[in-house]
Parts: sequence; C-alpha cells; structure tokens
Amino acid sequence: MLGIFDSGIGGLTVVKELLRRHPQAGFVYLGDTARTPYGNKSPETIRRYAIEDARFLADKGATTILVACNTVSAVAMDELRSAFSNIKFFEVITPAITSAIGKKIGVIGTRATIGSGVYEHRLKERDSSIKVISQACPLFVPLVEENWMDKSETKRIARAYLEPIRQQQVDSLILGCTHYPLLTEVIRSSLQKRVKIIDSPSALIDMVEREAGNALVDGKQEYYFTDPSALTDTIATRWLGKVIKGERATLA
Amino acid sequence: MLGIFDSGIGGLTVVKELLRRHPQAGFVYLGDTARTPYGNKSPETIRRYAIEDARFLADKGATTILVACNTVSAVAMDELRSAFSNIKFFEVITPAITSAIGKKIGVIGTRATIGSGVYEHRLKERDSSIKVISQACPLFVPLVEENWMDKSETKRIARAYLEPIRQQQVDSLILGCTHYPLLTEVIRSSLQKRVKIIDSPSALIDMVEREAGNALVDGKQEYYFTDPSALTDTIATRWLGKVIKGERATLA
Repeated sequence: MLGIFDSGIGGLTVVKELLRRHPQAGFVYLGDTARTPYGNKSPETIRRYAIEDARFLADKGATTILVACNTVSAVAMDELRSAFSNIKFFEVITPAITSAIGKKIGVIGTRATIGSGVYEHRLKERDSSIKVISQACPLFVPLVEENWMDKSETKRIARAYLEPIRQQQVDSLILGCTHYPLLTEVIRSSLQKRVKIIDSPSALIDMVEREAGNALVDGKQEYYFTDPSALTDTIATRWLGKVIKGERATLA
Repeated sequence: MLGIFDSGIGGLTVVKELLRRHPQAGFVYLGDTARTPYGNKSPETIRRYAIEDARFLADKGATTILVACNTVSAVAMDELRSAFSNIKFFEVITPAITSAIGKKIGVIGTRATIGSGVYEHRLKERDSSIKVISQACPLFVPLVEENWMDKSETKRIARAYLEPIRQQQVDSLILGCTHYPLLTEVIRSSLQKRVKIIDSPSALIDMVEREAGNALVDGKQEYYFTDPSALTDTIATRWLGKVIKGERATLA
C-alpha cells in the first residue's frame, strides 16, 4: 500500500499529480498540520517528526512511502531508511536532480532545504562542472496557502527572489518545495522563457511509475491530518478539485 | 517569578517592552518554535499546546504568566486558568481593548485570532455602539520573520490588507498579534495619520505594572525554545539588541 506524507498540505501537489495519472490509485496521505511548517525548524526536530510521520503510515499498512516534503527529503532520509528497513522510500530530490538539464541550474526552496545544500551537493555529484544558483524563498509557502497565487504582490516578491537566478541565465530551475508548482506561472514569468522548470511532483511520479509500478494499484484514498480543520479541507478541496474531508491522525 | 510564553519568537516583543522599562527584571521566556505558528491551527490543538507551555513555566517556578500570544489569548485562557489555579495569568487582548479609543476600531491579527471574533466581542461588551472592522493579515508574521519590514513588497501587502480599514476611517487600530509592533511604521503609513495604533506589548506591560508590580523583581533572564537554533538566536538578538542564546525546552 502507498503512503504519502508531508509537513502539511504542500504534499497534496504530489497527490494531485498521482491522481491526474491514476485517478483510482489507493493511498493514505498524512499531513502534519499540527506542527507545520517544517522548513524553518532544526534538522534534529525534522528527523524526529519524519520518523513519527512514517510510523503512522507504516501502522496503516504502507509498504511504499513517498516523502512529499523537500525539507524531510533533504535532512532525514538516512534516518527514515534505517528506522523502517522493510519500507521502500521515495523522496522528491532525486527525481528532480535527474530531470534537470544544462550546466547552470537554479534551485529554490525553503530556508532549511536551501541551507542543507542538498541540491547543490547532489547536482555536483552528477557532474562537478554544473554551476548551481540557490535561493531560499520562505514567503512562497504562506503566499500559496493564502491563495495569493495571482496577486501583483506575489509577482513582485517572486521577481525579487528570482532576480539573482534570472541574471545567471540558468538552463533549468528546480522547484525544491512541493508548494511551488502552484506558483509555476508566476515563477515562469520572472525568468527567461527558455528556462526548463522542474516540478518535483511530476518528476517523482515518473520515478514511482518506473521503479514501483506495483505500488500503483486501485484502492481506498484516505486523507489524515494531525490538525484537521475546515481550512485544511477547503485548501485540499480547492487544490485537488474534489471534496476532501480529512480525518484526525494521532502520532505516537 | 515571571513566565512569558508564545508560540514562537513573536512574544519577544513583550520581552523587549519589559526590558525597556525594567532592564534587570527576572523572567523565563518559552517560545514553542518546534510547533510554531499557532495562528493557523485549530482551537483544540492550540489549547493543548498552551497547557503544555504553561506547565513548563510552572515547573520552572512561574507564579505570574504573561501569555504573549494573541492566538492563545483568544482561544485558551479559560483552559489555562482552570488548569493552573495558583497562577496569575495576563493575556494580550484585555490591555489592548482597554487602550483603544473612539467608536470605530480596527483590529488586525492572524486568521485564528480574527476568526475567533474575540476582539469584536470584547469591544462590543465594553460599548455596544462601537463599530469593529477586522482583517486577518496572515502574511505579516512571515514577512517580519524574513526581516522584510522595510521592503516595498511589504508596504504593498500592508496597503492591500489595510485598505478596508483605511476606508472606514477608524479611530484606533489594535495590532492583535505580537509580531506586528515590528511593522508599526509600515502599518502607520497605510492609514490616516490620526489613527491611534494600539501596540499590545506596551498595553500589556502597563497592566502588569498596575496589577502585578510585585512580579517585576530583578533576577535571572532565561530564554527557552522547543526548537532552539542559530536562526532563532539571530532573530532574538536582532530584536532585543543584545546577544541571546536560547536553551532547549522539552515539553511534557
């Protein structure tokens, strides 16, 4: 069974891409909305939370888990894999690294993801001549959760954040946060037209189809949140385009 | 002994006002940075967290506690007072209500604070003819934590949020979130000059001086965070104008 978790609701962009391709796929989603966001917390705290999140999904029967959270993908995968040796984990960084093209690659994400240097490290491992231009964009998550995707203020903030990346004339830009695909249009309009935008949910589902196609079977679709609320249901319903009613998850 | 808590670092504006008037006052500060922010979480979750925060301070010997968090002040005071009957609690709403003047009063805060309707209810209790204009400003906290106080994007966002309040020509505006005093200048420039801005940290310390002056004694100043980090220390040091090194708090 497929489990998917995120610090909050951002990972629903992974669900959205999964459902676009496999509308009947069975899964359990967990959003840790009682402690969201993870992006500005310390690696130790993020690792502890990630283990608790995965344990919840393991207890629900998950054998394949998609870590739909860049912050966890950046700092906690070793801990997750050693704590749950029977579970196959996918994270959102490797697929994006694989999809990026060119010698100059931009990366944007939360402060924790960018601070970890994981994208830069992994890209240079692939090819040491790649130049990486990184930028933390901590206001993007609250802007998306405010549904301010189309506001002129959001465009201005995006332009301010992305200016150093635009000046470097990158070939690809990795959206290193699961919320960011919802800002794709604003981001695209702040950069040169030829820049390839790498959307990690899409790259992730490509990889799951290739490497764990047997996990993509029809079944029940369940949504759990550590702090379910009307607001969470509203945002999930708006993003996924169907009525979502989250259940309460209590983590051990 | 004086205890002060907040969901994160916003409550340090209360510490700042306390230290401005009583530089040697002893206190223990707790910021629940491992679960911050509270403003977009449900009342049940906020109440549970508030009890855990107060228990930590009670265990440290606090007999007077300042709830330096509007979200907790809005939804969890009854629970706190009944769980800790020996402790004298102050919250940030009553002092602001008392300080507001005029018949048209604006209130800004997080989504949870504004959604609770607590300011409107309490103002109308004081005088049912008062007209209250409320506005949630969920981007203000991340803007402050980004240190974007002086950016043009912040000014534009403030103008967008405050436009309905400006149009109503209010007499006073209550800053219903402990982060907001750091945006006072931006907020002031979005409104008519004659509007009285009510800053809750200042109104709160006025009330503590009147009603619990004996709690303001010289002593040790301690800062605890549930997720201490270099970033938290940096922000605290910048806001308070002196070097702060947070210790780790583990909540029961």
